[in-house]
Amino acid sequence: MNADLAARVLAGERRALARAVTLVESTRADHRAEAAALLETLRGHGRQALRIGLSGTPGVGKSTFIEAFGMMLVARGLSVAVLAVDPSSTRSGGSILGDKTRMERLSREPSAFIRPSPSLSHLGGVSRRTREAVALCEAAGFDVVLIETVGVGQSETMVAEMCDIFVLLLAPAGGDELQGVKRGIMEIADLILVNKADGELKSAATRTCADYAGALRLMRKRAQDPEGFPKALTVSALQDDGLDRAWEEMQALADWRKAKGHWQDRRAEQAAHWFEEEVRGGLLARLRTDREVKRRMAETGARVADGEISADAAAREMLTWLKG
Amino acid sequence: MNADLAARVLAGERRALARAVTLVESTRADHRAEAAALLETLRGHGRQALRIGLSGTPGVGKSTFIEAFGMMLVARGLSVAVLAVDPSSTRSGGSILGDKTRMERLSREPSAFIRPSPSLSHLGGVSRRTREAVALCEAAGFDVVLIETVGVGQSETMVAEMCDIFVLLLAPAGGDELQGVKRGIMEIADLILVNKADGELKSAATRTCADYAGALRLMRKRAQDPEGFPKALTVSALQDDGLDRAWEEMQALADWRKAKGHWQDRRAEQAAHWFEEEVRGGLLARLRTDREVKRRMAETGARVADGEISADAAAREMLTWLKG
Repeated sequence: MNADLAARVLAGERRALARAVTLVESTRADHRAEAAALLETLRGHGRQALRIGLSGTPGVGKSTFIEAFGMMLVARGLSVAVLAVDPSSTRSGGSILGDKTRMERLSREPSAFIRPSPSLSHLGGVSRRTREAVALCEAAGFDVVLIETVGVGQSETMVAEMCDIFVLLLAPAGGDELQGVKRGIMEIADLILVNKADGELKSAATRTCADYAGALRLMRKRAQDPEGFPKALTVSALQDDGLDRAWEEMQALADWRKAKGHWQDRRAEQAAHWFEEEVRGGLLARLRTDREVKRRMAETGARVADGEISADAAAREMLTWLKG
Repeated sequence: MNADLAARVLAGERRALARAVTLVESTRADHRAEAAALLETLRGHGRQALRIGLSGTPGVGKSTFIEAFGMMLVARGLSVAVLAVDPSSTRSGGSILGDKTRMERLSREPSAFIRPSPSLSHLGGVSRRTREAVALCEAAGFDVVLIETVGVGQSETMVAEMCDIFVLLLAPAGGDELQGVKRGIMEIADLILVNKADGELKSAATRTCADYAGALRLMRKRAQDPEGFPKALTVSALQDDGLDRAWEEMQALADWRKAKGHWQDRRAEQAAHWFEEEVRGGLLARLRTDREVKRRMAETGARVADGEISADAAAREMLTWLKG
């Protein structure tokens, strides 16, 4: 069955791809094993999509941008997959890309694939699932894979670790909005796009863009960047303005990195990074899944809560037991 | 020597406390063992400080507030320790509480203890160190321990897990600043203090405070809160205004929680939480400290980077080896 599913994914069948993504999203042990086998079967297809990470806080017009940008790519004869990473706080819930109606036009395009955000889970789970979904879209032959994330917590760093180019989408700001963007995000952005450069906000967008261009110039130049990068541009997703330019800049950057070998180096580093992450995740999973370990953790935790033993002494005791 | 150090900490000697904090901050294995022994010796002293977590982004007047608030407590005959948590991004550096000159008056008070932020490290390390420093200050008999953090990343959640009361310090805002505060922080705050309620900013502070009070009313009431909490107040650290009121509210909340048993429950839950964190940290530490494990991780990581094996297959291989 998996061999068939693999063949259909490789043939670019949307329904097979959707089923494969559902499989990698499942946490059931038998599904996990199937997913791992499927991904192994798909290895070595030699296809490489351009993986674009896109971050932006709610209100910057992310859906409108993805739809317009995606339609522009489709018009150029390219296929595009859109995935979402939404590691929302476990307390407050919250979601992006809840359904496909956000991007109605794009979702009707035969060469587009839009995957809504899966239900909440721990960050590690979100990360592996998304990474595997990216691998599936790549195997299915997509030219561009857009990985969308809301601008909170560690999700940007995670997305940056699985994309070739990282784009930060911003809205025009009044005043010192610059402070609002975390420095860490500025440092991983390859391209800053100030959206809504239309109508009344046009001049504000131009000003905001100039502010960010200035801030980017003050930052340390990265070895894997050609002259002029990272770059800030204005776009209007609503009026379909500046999207071609943005795409050309992304391509220029990608071509330069490929020519210099930085592209391949980065993918290699990312793979090594995810290997380490998986090992860490696997070690911790034992605490959640092994029945005997869980029982002992609960017992020891209760002794700590009762004040019978300190948290640190209890942890040392538990670690010794886990090693034995 | 440790018995002597322990006795001196219990006697409230500032220099012994400072030395003990330095000891728990050390990552050297022999120091770690000494620190663990010291903390075990100090257990059971029966003293409880009021642990106040304080979060605020740069610019809200955190240093001025801590100095004024600390001086107010000292004037009431209370002793106060100030600790800082600064899990700055590994990329950008950044620091708070770099030295004591930030709070010159308070640092000269004999009943105050101010500890600058330790050098950068991974979040887990910061957390344990701070927790242990809190335990030391408590053993030394401080009435109040203020744990300060910048409003970024997971540091608030971490601080919330080690304090009895969590205070969010804000500056007056123009317009829809409400969006700027992450919902997750609002949800853990017991008290919101809008600082700079003086001079030209006074009316803006009053407005901002009313906005937050409204937002807090819309949130789900928590079982461990008395009527009216969480609460928003205006203060002026500069003019020493509203600090008494803030302190009275904190005490009222603390008293209510103690009377209802929530206080003890929370400390018990926190201890159990830290036990689990320590176990997780200990499991992962093996990857960084065991020479043979490190060698094999590096070798396998290199095979992944070369494309010889997938990240996931490599991780499974490594996990099997670690178990065996």
